[in-house]
Amino acid sequence: MSPNDPSRPGPRFHVVLVEPEIAANAGAIGRTCVAVGAALWLVRPLGFLLDDRMVRRAGLDYWEHLDLRVVDSLDAVVEALGPDRLWWFSTKAARTYTEADFRPGDGLVFGPESRGLPSRRIEAAGDRAVRIPMRPEARSLNLANAAAVGLYEAVRQAAVANSGAPPGLSS
Amino acid sequence: MSPNDPSRPGPRFHVVLVEPEIAANAGAIGRTCVAVGAALWLVRPLGFLLDDRMVRRAGLDYWEHLDLRVVDSLDAVVEALGPDRLWWFSTKAARTYTEADFRPGDGLVFGPESRGLPSRRIEAAGDRAVRIPMRPEARSLNLANAAAVGLYEAVRQAAVANSGAPPGLSS
Repeated sequence: MSPNDPSRPGPRFHVVLVEPEIAANAGAIGRTCVAVGAALWLVRPLGFLLDDRMVRRAGLDYWEHLDLRVVDSLDAVVEALGPDRLWWFSTKAARTYTEADFRPGDGLVFGPESRGLPSRRIEAAGDRAVRIPMRPEARSLNLANAAAVGLYEAVRQAAVANSGAPPGLSS
Repeated sequence: MSPNDPSRPGPRFHVVLVEPEIAANAGAIGRTCVAVGAALWLVRPLGFLLDDRMVRRAGLDYWEHLDLRVVDSLDAVVEALGPDRLWWFSTKAARTYTEADFRPGDGLVFGPESRGLPSRRIEAAGDRAVRIPMRPEARSLNLANAAAVGLYEAVRQAAVANSGAPPGLSS
């Protein structure tokens, strides 16, 4: 895997996991990223070892196709992608994720499983903080599921923007 | 939990897992179902024990809110929901899931993790067989992720139909 291979087309979207805690979630999200051609950023500290054994144990035979970037701070991601290209997913956000205007090159940011993104990040993000609507009984979605839902909505919007019409209207 | 409690509002959607093999996937899908107010159908045989221990181990504290229905055959689901209300998810389907016209009361059907739905079911389903688009390197999505993506697209479409305009245009 060489994320910097110049012959490789740029990723369509980026998923950013801030201090992820559970290897299985990172693995499943990596698989979803490969599925849609997104890059996966992991912001340290990680709650698991990112080594071959973890990858083998989870049977991640797609891992070699993953554009993976591990960084020491969220600031590194903000600097690389630009603050106006990030969407901050939080159950505390006011705006629904389907109201976001996802554009290719955008990054979808998710906090740690146990506590989510810090409130100050959500407040600072303003309209770029979004939530996945849900009933209160569920409290939250599994992290990998939330990332998949957000990422496929971004992909759907990109397809609509490309075709000029919502999918479904042409069939 | 009493799925047949007449005071309970009917589920907005149904997720049907045919012969699911992995408890963690069923647990995560149950959580997503609670999050959107969908019912979860499990078609036997199951690859795991559906007992309190499994539920406790997975920390499923939302499980009591789940409208869960365990049945012996897929035919029981078809009979209960109606063949024209089911959408069959398969990597072999020609149509994209965003082209489906999801309506409240519809059921989203997923096959076992290891083999998916049988080809004959997909052929018989015609336009009601749909796939989640992905690059070939990923082969497939994790089952719980696929169910979350399908279910939240159904919820999104229902919200659009309710408001008369796509979400996002009003913001």
